[in-house]
Amino acid sequence: MLQPPPADPGMSVDDIDTPALVLDLDAFHANLDLMANFAARTGVKLRPHAKTHKSPVIAKMQMARGAVGQCVQKVGEAEILAWGGVADILVSNEVVSPRKLARLSALSGIAEVAVCVDAAEGVRRLEAAAESAANRLTALVEVDVGSGRCGVATKSEALALAQMIAASPRLRFGGLQGYHGAAQHQRSPEDRRKSIADATGAVAALVEELRGIGLDCGIVSGAGTGTFELEASSGVYSELQVGSYIFMDADYGRNRPAPPFRQALFVLSSVMSAGRSGAAVIDAGHKAVAVNSGLPLVWNRPGATYVGASDEHGKLVLEPGSEPARLGDRVWLAPGHCDPTVDRHDWYVGVRGTRVECLWPVAARGAMA
Amino acid sequence: MLQPPPADPGMSVDDIDTPALVLDLDAFHANLDLMANFAARTGVKLRPHAKTHKSPVIAKMQMARGAVGQCVQKVGEAEILAWGGVADILVSNEVVSPRKLARLSALSGIAEVAVCVDAAEGVRRLEAAAESAANRLTALVEVDVGSGRCGVATKSEALALAQMIAASPRLRFGGLQGYHGAAQHQRSPEDRRKSIADATGAVAALVEELRGIGLDCGIVSGAGTGTFELEASSGVYSELQVGSYIFMDADYGRNRPAPPFRQALFVLSSVMSAGRSGAAVIDAGHKAVAVNSGLPLVWNRPGATYVGASDEHGKLVLEPGSEPARLGDRVWLAPGHCDPTVDRHDWYVGVRGTRVECLWPVAARGAMA
Repeated sequence: MLQPPPADPGMSVDDIDTPALVLDLDAFHANLDLMANFAARTGVKLRPHAKTHKSPVIAKMQMARGAVGQCVQKVGEAEILAWGGVADILVSNEVVSPRKLARLSALSGIAEVAVCVDAAEGVRRLEAAAESAANRLTALVEVDVGSGRCGVATKSEALALAQMIAASPRLRFGGLQGYHGAAQHQRSPEDRRKSIADATGAVAALVEELRGIGLDCGIVSGAGTGTFELEASSGVYSELQVGSYIFMDADYGRNRPAPPFRQALFVLSSVMSAGRSGAAVIDAGHKAVAVNSGLPLVWNRPGATYVGASDEHGKLVLEPGSEPARLGDRVWLAPGHCDPTVDRHDWYVGVRGTRVECLWPVAARGAMA
Repeated sequence: MLQPPPADPGMSVDDIDTPALVLDLDAFHANLDLMANFAARTGVKLRPHAKTHKSPVIAKMQMARGAVGQCVQKVGEAEILAWGGVADILVSNEVVSPRKLARLSALSGIAEVAVCVDAAEGVRRLEAAAESAANRLTALVEVDVGSGRCGVATKSEALALAQMIAASPRLRFGGLQGYHGAAQHQRSPEDRRKSIADATGAVAALVEELRGIGLDCGIVSGAGTGTFELEASSGVYSELQVGSYIFMDADYGRNRPAPPFRQALFVLSSVMSAGRSGAAVIDAGHKAVAVNSGLPLVWNRPGATYVGASDEHGKLVLEPGSEPARLGDRVWLAPGHCDPTVDRHDWYVGVRGTRVECLWPVAARGAMA
């Protein structure tokens, strides 16, 4: 059951029910524009990651500014985007269950769909799904560029998989996926530069070898909000799959320098208990704001710090001399990590200044299969 | 948008799509019975906490075994239960926004509803909501029995609030709420016994003083799965608001001794990448299983350990000599923390042995307001 929206368009920000996922539309549009301009200036294509926003509405805003399509991690996310009219989708992840592959294959009728593989058995499963649906699927080889998660570890494995894909009458070789997740939150620019230099070097060599055996990489996709300038300038990545730049979060804010985007995403909460001096309890715990990458930051309330999250409660500490908390006080939180925070909520409340401008569903909320 | 169910009744457990929230029905029913029998034997009432399960289906199973009603933390949860036919609901938490209080007040027509307060301003807000709806609300005073979160800190504050409630023509004094959250996961039985002895001592003294001024506590509610035997034997708590006992989780499993319940709740996942010897990647990261109280435990796969969660991926390490991972292998996870894990999912898949027996919606999933 979808939860009722916590606000109505036109109402005052003061009347939004809490906890609520609030989008500062001015900051959000500035972030959209900044990345779109960067891509236009550098000539690299933008295929933003919908695992961050889970919304066809936001996907289309990105595409109206020049993005070539969307990335997703899950078939359920691909469905929501395709059904919402997004015509070009890359599943930047492995899909191995026959049921999910059948669902993905079924989307080919309404959208360009591509998916990643990192094993011969994965290629065989893709082939079987395409065979069963009597269509053809595009597959990218995922290479591990340093995260030690999915992706083939060696150039020879990548070459073998690419050839296996290209040889299949049911598959198309789409290129390479090489996302360095671990580099995104390396705090120092030197560490990030080193990580991405290693990644782009390996990917460039692989692209060259593939070209040598007659296989062109239509797509070379990777990058995130912490490193996108590095992949863009590499000359080898053709697409940036940045996600968090539209919202930002406290964890990206800890990079040095922080990515050049404004904090646009907030969880709005209220003080529900204020009996102790120097402390307060708010109605947003970790069911409302993800804490896996650190606690949220209290926004625009000097001296107040979010010090502990339980399921439904957040504890604030208030420095001596700071504004005392009163029951019902509104507290704005910048989430530690934007993606999983969005995934907790059914609605975006879009605000401009003091006014609620729009409500958008987090349409692919919970699309984990 | 509700996600499609990951299984159908009657299918084999092997065909459940992943990640999925799976309930071992034998273990679940054993847990329901064990707690119901405990309550019947000791004479204490059971008002289980629906923040754990968020399901009227499960609420009614608890009530069919003698539970007097349900606890919730949020008005949205109270709505889902009341609309689903649960007739007696305690919001074991403060509610301060006029909109939420109006919604709560509106439920009085179809259910007994009570709510907690810990401030005079909270009492005034309750009164205004009841006045506006032309009805009468039951209020319990929450006392802080050691968690340092919500609740009044002193006996004199509690007495003053109880008198304020009792004096209001729009309110009824319902009793006391005294939940010691911090004690639930104290690992040693001595620490838990000491915490709950302090709590029950303070609550008993307060109940006595209230009786002295003519105020009877209809309800004295508290306890959790880590300490319920202690509150039950105290003679002062009349109701147990245990939640997690129906499911269990890895964090409760670390108590010494562990609570006497079976692990009934699992996240079923699949291996999606298995290219590295001694490791595997599964399709359940922290969007599918809460990690705020520790990583999930791999169930029934000796030598396999869940060592890292990212948004959509879980990393397993496989001990030398243990079964190697193959693409598509099914991996059962016992969540670190059951409540927020349930809140990530739209469906319970109830299984008995190797067969899917039922699908139930997590009806109040995301009900955070």
